[in-house]
Amino acid sequence: MTPSAARQLFRDGLRTPTAGWCRGWTQANLLAVPSSLAYDLLLFAQRNPRACPVLDVGEPGAFRTEIFAGDLRTDLPGYRVYEDGVPVADLSDVTRIWRADLVPFLIGCSFTFEDALLRAGVPMRHLEAGTNVPMYVTSVPCRPAGALAGPLVVSMRPVPAALVATAVKITSRYPAVHGAPVHVGDPAAIGVADLAAPDFGDPVPLHPGDVPLFWACGVTPQAAVMAGGIRFAIGHLPGHMAITDVRDHEFDVA
Amino acid sequence: MTPSAARQLFRDGLRTPTAGWCRGWTQANLLAVPSSLAYDLLLFAQRNPRACPVLDVGEPGAFRTEIFAGDLRTDLPGYRVYEDGVPVADLSDVTRIWRADLVPFLIGCSFTFEDALLRAGVPMRHLEAGTNVPMYVTSVPCRPAGALAGPLVVSMRPVPAALVATAVKITSRYPAVHGAPVHVGDPAAIGVADLAAPDFGDPVPLHPGDVPLFWACGVTPQAAVMAGGIRFAIGHLPGHMAITDVRDHEFDVA
Repeated sequence: MTPSAARQLFRDGLRTPTAGWCRGWTQANLLAVPSSLAYDLLLFAQRNPRACPVLDVGEPGAFRTEIFAGDLRTDLPGYRVYEDGVPVADLSDVTRIWRADLVPFLIGCSFTFEDALLRAGVPMRHLEAGTNVPMYVTSVPCRPAGALAGPLVVSMRPVPAALVATAVKITSRYPAVHGAPVHVGDPAAIGVADLAAPDFGDPVPLHPGDVPLFWACGVTPQAAVMAGGIRFAIGHLPGHMAITDVRDHEFDVA
Repeated sequence: MTPSAARQLFRDGLRTPTAGWCRGWTQANLLAVPSSLAYDLLLFAQRNPRACPVLDVGEPGAFRTEIFAGDLRTDLPGYRVYEDGVPVADLSDVTRIWRADLVPFLIGCSFTFEDALLRAGVPMRHLEAGTNVPMYVTSVPCRPAGALAGPLVVSMRPVPAALVATAVKITSRYPAVHGAPVHVGDPAAIGVADLAAPDFGDPVPLHPGDVPLFWACGVTPQAAVMAGGIRFAIGHLPGHMAITDVRDHEFDVA
């Protein structure tokens, strides 16, 4: 399916996680913040590049960017709205609340390298299960920037032990979509108490011999919006990404 | 030599290009702009990541950053000061004109991967000649951001034809310090009329069989300061870099 066909479905109201959609096309996290916060967010991203690899930033009020030809207010399958750092609504359309001073950020998403992993024979357990990827708030602090500070959020994929090196090697070639894992193995080491209870997305079963691999996640700036009590922001609903018009391989540095 | 020892020499007044200095330590371009321009510069960098890979951004008025333990006002071997987009002075010390609202940006420099190239047997002609690397203003436009727009600036290294692939492969692993070449071969294709007349730095001889390789250069944002007629900015003197306290290999993604 092409990105524009998928966006049409979402615009028509389909709410679904986008893992596995539009294979080969880059998916992105959305975070739109008032222009007064745009520098802090851009600096937060620069200081936490593994969690917040910025793919594109729109002009204030714009609902298109160079890499996203759709309408950022309607063409994602889900949005989360924040007021004073608190999620106040999950919506399918944010046209009516899209303010003229909102600056949209598109941030790389690890769904982007799943196609490369699959091609290398690394199974994607959440795709096999037909569920959203599990995401966890860790005990690892981000480097603050202005009003933004908070914990690193990670996505987790179980990988058979024999394929861990392959998964690391392949994803390291994609720094623009989170790159190599930030952690391999013991969840407790990064403050994740229970893999069965993700903070976002769905739990996913580990098969015997699977090792949990954790990648920095583009939900991290939404966690910073919450921790910072930011007045107003619109993000994507975790796992419900912006499907862009850029091919995955554009972000392969190898 | 350690970065702090080199910085002491520069602080004491030594003015020299830093190519070949402190092998294994990361070198950086400096551009300090008033805080009112900081968002535009950070966005310009995001939109032109090959030319402007941001390594660190300081707080307004700060003359240290997390990766640079020295004094940014004295510890570079040369500075270039801009007023209304015009270079008005080359100085060895900018303490007296460092304003409280200046935001210092440290931007990756291709000197960083020269050590990896040398270890792979790729000769560095400008190091052999003991001169600064040649830099050229190209006809390739950058993607604008706010008040900043301008041409891409490149550095050039002649590489023996048999080693071009090696040089591309190695430098592609260092996206944070400009990554792979933006152009290989014919200078005219990117608007460089005469290799013997660089816009910054020194000309360097091509040996028989050498191919000119061009890398995006961190002087690019200084070109944008000029093209944009920016009121006030302080950059490094081209080739006279900030030597940071970070090791080169931290920026190797492979």
